[in-house]
Amino acid sequence: MDRIPTGVKGLDEVLNGGLPKGRIILVVGSPGSGKTTLAMQFLVGGAKAGESGLYVSLDEKPERVKENLASYDWNLDGLEHEGKITFIDATQLRRPGQRIVPSKVESEGGVNLILPELTLPVLARTIRRVAAEENIQRITIDPITSLMLRYPEEAKLRRAMLLFFDALESTGCSCIVTSELRTSMLDRSFQLEEYLSQGVILLRTMIHEGNVIRAVQIEKMRGISHDAQLRPYQITQTGIDVYPKDRVF
Amino acid sequence: MDRIPTGVKGLDEVLNGGLPKGRIILVVGSPGSGKTTLAMQFLVGGAKAGESGLYVSLDEKPERVKENLASYDWNLDGLEHEGKITFIDATQLRRPGQRIVPSKVESEGGVNLILPELTLPVLARTIRRVAAEENIQRITIDPITSLMLRYPEEAKLRRAMLLFFDALESTGCSCIVTSELRTSMLDRSFQLEEYLSQGVILLRTMIHEGNVIRAVQIEKMRGISHDAQLRPYQITQTGIDVYPKDRVF
Amino acid sequence: MDRIPTGVKGLDEVLNGGLPKGRIILVVGSPGSGKTTLAMQFLVGGAKAGESGLYVSLDEKPERVKENLASYDWNLDGLEHEGKITFIDATQLRRPGQRIVPSKVESEGGVNLILPELTLPVLARTIRRVAAEENIQRITIDPITSLMLRYPEEAKLRRAMLLFFDALESTGCSCIVTSELRTSMLDRSFQLEEYLSQGVILLRTMIHEGNVIRAVQIEKMRGISHDAQLRPYQITQTGIDVYPKDRVF
Amino acid sequence: MDRIPTGVKGLDEVLNGGLPKGRIILVVGSPGSGKTTLAMQFLVGGAKAGESGLYVSLDEKPERVKENLASYDWNLDGLEHEGKITFIDATQLRRPGQRIVPSKVESEGGVNLILPELTLPVLARTIRRVAAEENIQRITIDPITSLMLRYPEEAKLRRAMLLFFDALESTGCSCIVTSELRTSMLDRSFQLEEYLSQGVILLRTMIHEGNVIRAVQIEKMRGISHDAQLRPYQITQTGIDVYPKDRVF
Amino acid sequence: MDRIPTGVKGLDEVLNGGLPKGRIILVVGSPGSGKTTLAMQFLVGGAKAGESGLYVSLDEKPERVKENLASYDWNLDGLEHEGKITFIDATQLRRPGQRIVPSKVESEGGVNLILPELTLPVLARTIRRVAAEENIQRITIDPITSLMLRYPEEAKLRRAMLLFFDALESTGCSCIVTSELRTSMLDRSFQLEEYLSQGVILLRTMIHEGNVIRAVQIEKMRGISHDAQLRPYQITQTGIDVYPKDRVF
Amino acid sequence: MDRIPTGVKGLDEVLNGGLPKGRIILVVGSPGSGKTTLAMQFLVGGAKAGESGLYVSLDEKPERVKENLASYDWNLDGLEHEGKITFIDATQLRRPGQRIVPSKVESEGGVNLILPELTLPVLARTIRRVAAEENIQRITIDPITSLMLRYPEEAKLRRAMLLFFDALESTGCSCIVTSELRTSMLDRSFQLEEYLSQGVILLRTMIHEGNVIRAVQIEKMRGISHDAQLRPYQITQTGIDVYPKDRVF
Repeated sequence: MDRIPTGVKGLDEVLNGGLPKGRIILVVGSPGSGKTTLAMQFLVGGAKAGESGLYVSLDEKPERVKENLASYDWNLDGLEHEGKITFIDATQLRRPGQRIVPSKVESEGGVNLILPELTLPVLARTIRRVAAEENIQRITIDPITSLMLRYPEEAKLRRAMLLFFDALESTGCSCIVTSELRTSMLDRSFQLEEYLSQGVILLRTMIHEGNVIRAVQIEKMRGISHDAQLRPYQITQTGIDVYPKDRVF
Repeated sequence: MDRIPTGVKGLDEVLNGGLPKGRIILVVGSPGSGKTTLAMQFLVGGAKAGESGLYVSLDEKPERVKENLASYDWNLDGLEHEGKITFIDATQLRRPGQRIVPSKVESEGGVNLILPELTLPVLARTIRRVAAEENIQRITIDPITSLMLRYPEEAKLRRAMLLFFDALESTGCSCIVTSELRTSMLDRSFQLEEYLSQGVILLRTMIHEGNVIRAVQIEKMRGISHDAQLRPYQITQTGIDVYPKDRVF
Repeated sequence: MDRIPTGVKGLDEVLNGGLPKGRIILVVGSPGSGKTTLAMQFLVGGAKAGESGLYVSLDEKPERVKENLASYDWNLDGLEHEGKITFIDATQLRRPGQRIVPSKVESEGGVNLILPELTLPVLARTIRRVAAEENIQRITIDPITSLMLRYPEEAKLRRAMLLFFDALESTGCSCIVTSELRTSMLDRSFQLEEYLSQGVILLRTMIHEGNVIRAVQIEKMRGISHDAQLRPYQITQTGIDVYPKDRVF
Repeated sequence: MDRIPTGVKGLDEVLNGGLPKGRIILVVGSPGSGKTTLAMQFLVGGAKAGESGLYVSLDEKPERVKENLASYDWNLDGLEHEGKITFIDATQLRRPGQRIVPSKVESEGGVNLILPELTLPVLARTIRRVAAEENIQRITIDPITSLMLRYPEEAKLRRAMLLFFDALESTGCSCIVTSELRTSMLDRSFQLEEYLSQGVILLRTMIHEGNVIRAVQIEKMRGISHDAQLRPYQITQTGIDVYPKDRVF
Repeated sequence: MDRIPTGVKGLDEVLNGGLPKGRIILVVGSPGSGKTTLAMQFLVGGAKAGESGLYVSLDEKPERVKENLASYDWNLDGLEHEGKITFIDATQLRRPGQRIVPSKVESEGGVNLILPELTLPVLARTIRRVAAEENIQRITIDPITSLMLRYPEEAKLRRAMLLFFDALESTGCSCIVTSELRTSMLDRSFQLEEYLSQGVILLRTMIHEGNVIRAVQIEKMRGISHDAQLRPYQITQTGIDVYPKDRVF
Repeated sequence: MDRIPTGVKGLDEVLNGGLPKGRIILVVGSPGSGKTTLAMQFLVGGAKAGESGLYVSLDEKPERVKENLASYDWNLDGLEHEGKITFIDATQLRRPGQRIVPSKVESEGGVNLILPELTLPVLARTIRRVAAEENIQRITIDPITSLMLRYPEEAKLRRAMLLFFDALESTGCSCIVTSELRTSMLDRSFQLEEYLSQGVILLRTMIHEGNVIRAVQIEKMRGISHDAQLRPYQITQTGIDVYPKDRVF
């Protein structure tokens, strides 16, 4: 199976070379665990390798996301300007009846949708259209949680998620989808999106003897062999930094 | 009771010779624990022993399943081509009103069903028909979870599952059914399918002193004596590898 | 109070001589803990002591139950043939509108009921009739869980169970009723059938320092003094084997 | 406040002299913890001290209760014959439309009620009438759980229980009411009847280092000072035996 | 902020001088933890300091409350007779359509309300009227739980509680409101009344190495600095006795 | 990203210089953890640095809040008088149909709204208007919990909160929003507001070996690097005091 680098060197080592190409990988973590950081680092790493990226923002406006990430040495504005990262502002779902305006495309008279309400199928169609027009290779959806809440019935949510993941895959792009952890890590319930995606990267925050410890764990990665151990990580000026040979304690 | 090898040598030792023939065995595990790997290894092992296998895919298209498993030295495409493993793509349940097309059979003008919606009885009938036509000895259903979610009432689910397991048994085939674990392992709730099947293999992922440990446990295996201890396993290039004499820690 | 041997020597020691005669004893355990093994061993032990037994199978057909237990040196077919153990196949509850056919009785033109749906009162009546006609002294109902699920309202379930246990008692037979444990053993909820029966035997599966440990515990046994400690057991070729002097760890 | 001996010598020491007279004391315990034993021992102790007792049986017929307790050296039949213990069979609640027949009173042409359905107010009235006619000083209600289940709404249950306890108190008798523990003891939820009664005796079953340990704990006892520590107890031929100076481990 | 002594010397030390004057303090505890004892001790301490107290009894009649507390050397009847403690019997809420009769006031032809049903606003009005007429400085409401159960919807309960606490405050009196703990202390849910009151005193019952340990903890006390540690307490002949310098273990 | 000091010196060190300017930071804590203290300290610190602050009080009247905080050496009345801190009394939400009267503004004939019921959008509009008129730089909303309870459906609550946070941000002010912790810290569920805000400061209360320990943890702080460890804090005469170099135990 073809691999692509994640943009996080230590993580590529844990993955024995990178993420599987053209797949949907879930990044699950608690508040502040660095889900958005990792998701954008994936696009930045792609841009450096010549792959165009698409960032779909569900909860925060793209301007705000860029501000939040401004302390990293990534030059997101430059990458957007060069067309290496395109942003879709999908936060309008908050106000029914308004437009979804992919930020970059619009200035070129591109996609310009009227949405009565954003749903998983509508989002999938939008992403497929933009991915085709912009020649996208990497996609980040951050986070999927808001849309999942629209399906309170578990059987229907499962079906909708399977169809959404199918649609994403049909773009041929490599995708990272972030998801919010519902409960802390001990004795937790597994979330259905963990079963439906092809890989799951957990960003854990543990308290051990009074210390807060951050650890990444490849819970699942279909199709490639990988290190299944907990590996410590930190959030530094270059983003997520994984120590692939260290133990958490 | 007759035994059949599982395709996993170490697991056969834990089972004192293999799984009971003609029975329904549940494989329960968390995301990334290797449920699909074990289920397919069971068919590959059967193929090597001259038994035809049927893989029923509920959540992912067979092509994708084969891709996910391509890193193992199994030559799934070859086995499918030789007719040793047949795939049923049951993922169409996601789009009501479409066909269920058993992938191999179709090219021979075989079974070709129109399904308004896939249910446990419909799936059972399809499997029985294909199993008879293709002279199947081993069946894998991966995973059963989606279909179970359609029965939110516990009493009805239990009855539907009992009937489904009856129908599977009437094929005379040895079956592995995978199921998703709902909650992590400590203080967990038992799932009804564990009670209704004739054997349960748990694929556990434990965290012990900061290490992730994988262990297989034969929770239940009616009709044969077996080792009930936790035994470590790894996922290697040949699939699941169980260490039947080792302790987990 | 009169005692009867359980058929498990070590368990009789734990019970200071056996189960109370003419009572309803609950056997509660997790999947694979040996509930059916213990329940049948109770009938086999009775047969050896000259008491006729009745096995009421709720989830699996009697043929299958016998197969599952074939590895034990019990000669169930022989016992059935000699009329020492009678089987009622109550699995038809799965298909409304069909017959309940007590397997042995039927060939003699015996009981032959049309059931629109099996309920606790209907089952009680059937058991009483067969018990009287076949001169039964020991009854096993395995498991009661399916029928309990039909009463989602706790107050109604409790009343139905009390009436069912009354009816069982009125047969004068000694009864073992198996029940599935809902949650694992630590911090568990107690199940109402544990309160309503006259004795509860727990078959526990514990994990201690990475080892799986099986232990039997007499949680309750009205009318007789008994050992309340956890005692290890194993499942061997002769069935459940309890070590009444050993500690679990 | 006046004290009365419980009939359990060690328990009286823990209570610094016995239970408060004329109060409602709750005995809460898990299955098999000895709730009925303690409740009857309270009446037997009263009989020895010249106080007439009333045993109200909610789940089991009085004959069965007496059988269950026959292994103790209490001579319950004798005490009933001498009029020192009166039994009310309130199990008819299971079959709506039937009579409640206080077993002793009836043979004397006494109370003979037609009950459409047993409720807390109806039970309270019955108890008050019998208590007055039979000159009762001690009452045992065993167990209250069935009746509580009839009030699924917590606010209504609380009101009904308060009124029921008021009615019991107005008899002037000392009362023990047994109640089933819902969940095991660690991190448990408190049950409302524990708040509404004037005293709570917990019969705990703990597992410590692989041993089952029984301990009594006076959780609450309004109006009298008492030992609040866990104290071990055993069930012997004379009933519950509390070791008021020992520690549990 | 002005302080008032609690009536418990050790507790005043923990509070660095006493409770804030004119505020609503919650006392939360498990069954038997001494909530009523502490609440009445607060009124007794006030009476000694020349402040008139009002005890509002929600679940038990005042006569019974006094009996329960008769073992303490407080002379409650004397204090009531001198007009230093007034009792409101609010237990009539149990029987809709009856009167609320403040016990002392009535004999003086005082307040005499007809209540269709006791609600938080009605109780607040009653308390305000009596507090004004009787020149009350300290109020105890014991316990608030029954009334809270009338508001099953959390948003409405929160609003009703805020209004009730507002009304209590407008009396200018210092108030203690007792509340029943729902679950045991480890990993517990916080109760909304803990957030809405100005101070929370927890009466904890812990089990440590087989011993029952009682400890008081000032969880919250707005406006005054205080010791936040767990401090052991006992219930002695003078009431609650806190050891402000000791550790719990 | 621009930083602003929090008013708590030790906390600024943990944050490597202060909170991000113009963002919404959540302060989550249990009862008595000091949420209001920290929130007001933030405004006091701003006032010292020449920034005008707005305190929006949801559960307690501003007069009462000031009283509660009077033991700190902050001179809140002076700051209000100088116009450095403005109070909005939003507690009227408790009585539908009444006015929301921003306390300071009113005396100047300012904002004077009639509210049928306070909702998140209405509150947002009010805050924006006052913030503009009073040239506010810092805002505190204490606590948000009451308003969140009005949205029992999670999907709608999430959308309402996103819009509310958007509106707050559009003021350009730096905001602290307090929120009540639902369950204690171990194995807790994450609350959605933790995901939707740009930073989360947890005020933890832990019990370790019988001691109550207070610790602050920066769970999340988008856009700035920070110390993620638990750091002890105390509540002293100057407010919250964080020890940025110490370990909790």
